Amino acid sequence: PDPEVRAAARTRLDALAKPLGALGRVEELAAWWSACAGRCPADPPAAVRAVILAGDHGVSADGVSAYPREVTAAMVRAFVAGVAGASVLARQHDVALRVLDLAVDADLDDLPGVAEHKVRRSSGAVDREDALTAAQTWAALDAGALVAAEEVAAGADLLVLGDMGIGNTTPAAALVAASLGAPAEQVVGRGTGVDDARLAHKTAVVTRALARAGDRVGDPVERLTALGSADLAAGVGFLVAAARARVPVLLDGVVPLAELLVAEDLQPGVVAWCAAGHRSTEPAQRLALEKLGLEPVLDLGLRLGEGTGALTALPVLRSAALLLRDMALLADLAP
Amino acid sequence: PDPEVRAAARTRLDALAKPLGALGRVEELAAWWSACAGRCPADPPAAVRAVILAGDHGVSADGVSAYPREVTAAMVRAFVAGVAGASVLARQHDVALRVLDLAVDADLDDLPGVAEHKVRRSSGAVDREDALTAAQTWAALDAGALVAAEEVAAGADLLVLGDMGIGNTTPAAALVAASLGAPAEQVVGRGTGVDDARLAHKTAVVTRALARAGDRVGDPVERLTALGSADLAAGVGFLVAAARARVPVLLDGVVPLAELLVAEDLQPGVVAWCAAGHRSTEPAQRLALEKLGLEPVLDLGLRLGEGTGALTALPVLRSAALLLRDMALLADLAP
Repeated sequence: PDPEVRAAARTRLDALAKPLGALGRVEELAAWWSACAGRCPADPPAAVRAVILAGDHGVSADGVSAYPREVTAAMVRAFVAGVAGASVLARQHDVALRVLDLAVDADLDDLPGVAEHKVRRSSGAVDREDALTAAQTWAALDAGALVAAEEVAAGADLLVLGDMGIGNTTPAAALVAASLGAPAEQVVGRGTGVDDARLAHKTAVVTRALARAGDRVGDPVERLTALGSADLAAGVGFLVAAARARVPVLLDGVVPLAELLVAEDLQPGVVAWCAAGHRSTEPAQRLALEKLGLEPVLDLGLRLGEGTGALTALPVLRSAALLLRDMALLADLAP
Repeated sequence: PDPEVRAAARTRLDALAKPLGALGRVEELAAWWSACAGRCPADPPAAVRAVILAGDHGVSADGVSAYPREVTAAMVRAFVAGVAGASVLARQHDVALRVLDLAVDADLDDLPGVAEHKVRRSSGAVDREDALTAAQTWAALDAGALVAAEEVAAGADLLVLGDMGIGNTTPAAALVAASLGAPAEQVVGRGTGVDDARLAHKTAVVTRALARAGDRVGDPVERLTALGSADLAAGVGFLVAAARARVPVLLDGVVPLAELLVAEDLQPGVVAWCAAGHRSTEPAQRLALEKLGLEPVLDLGLRLGEGTGALTALPVLRSAALLLRDMALLADLAP
């Protein structure tokens, strides 16, 4: 993002027909969007493309989620059919929605294009084994980067990154813990809604995973290999590629934030192209946000994933751009 | 709102293809909207009409605001010209926007229709005199009710209530204090952004106003006469009439919430037709929300008034209705 354009946006915000600072957080969004677009004022995001990266996780065989892993494949079909939560919101906000099977534990070859970047069926159970082989990690990083490049080539002026995968808050929490040096107790949350016993089990799974991975997690790619998954590694590649292409990304909940934490380690500066759409109920997201210096636009208690928090926040980002562009200047009002 | 429809909406929400409760606050909005519409699922609000009630206030001659009162008339002209913040957001969300001069201290007769319900030029300085005569209070209540009826007749399925008036957070704070029996120190905030000295002055103004009004504030109409204004009294009439017409209202910041507090005293049950769009930075709004049992959709630090907080929240309400109507049921997904 262009710091001079950001400064110009702040100057224009102060000159609009309103009290100083009276648009609150919307002013930060407007300045960020202008800086990313490289123009002040900039048109609002018009060609928005959302990508949902789907995968299963070895840990979901073992009671970390309130739902069985078969739900992941069923939800991929629901996205394709246009009847999932994210589908509804994408239609509302004129967003192109694409779902990709990176590691779903099912055969989805009957869905055109959905499995074209598939790395494997389910990633490993991170408390007992590596999530991926090193080659699979690189394949997933490359797949995510390629998807981002395809979306940019399709004309995206804003990307939305979402996730789908029963059990995926467990590797996300492990990645956040490993990235920040935090203990499992600080990162593990209730995901889709587990009870106290499953929460304790999930915490134990993350504790064992962190102990098993040990010092390898200092390297961000090794961290993905040991504790991540193909879908999460693809998210990391997606974010790095989007930033390289200078296309901003609106992020959803804990999974994309865990991906961003790793992406920022891999390629410092990626975070400058990212905004957080929604505050997750997962503690790992709060830690990631604090570390990255991001403040979510919304806090509606959503815990659905799928990019739904980011999609719900999109009209606020559009409002920010429109207000900066179309409001009168105070100097233009007849006194 | 229909309690049976609300219950049906909750049942349907629990059956959607998502974890239980995973849409957070959006689920409450969806149930409220269905109950107001009397159908489950209901179509999202389509014919949304926003009304901004404008007026000046005697206290603004005396340093309670960071801005001179001439700004009120200039902003009314900005709404008519379509260049104010609320104008930009109304266009974004396909909302019909209407501004009405109830008590602006200027001659706005050149603006077609804007002054057709004008009660007076500026309301009284509430620390020294009544805001209105008894006849003016009733005229303003009637004007607000008539405006609501006109908007309903124009086909509104949702109303938005906003405010414009330099100094208006002072009578709003006084009305909240008088409605709740709270001292001035608990209700007074920085409005458009006053410094510490003006904040202390504003607190003293509200303290004097409450002392002057005394026991008269037990009656909601007398409360408006002593401490309100023509624009705030019109807001009260508007809310009562909207509820009688069974048309829901999305409210903005501290001024509409102060109006709702008085409206609920005048006609218990009005609050059931209202949702709060945005959390104000004014402490009086928090007290009113707590008393009324409302939780705002957004908390973006907006402090612009004009209905901007409600307009920014509108797409979330539309999302709520669309998700309830269009998401698949869990039972419909192939397992």
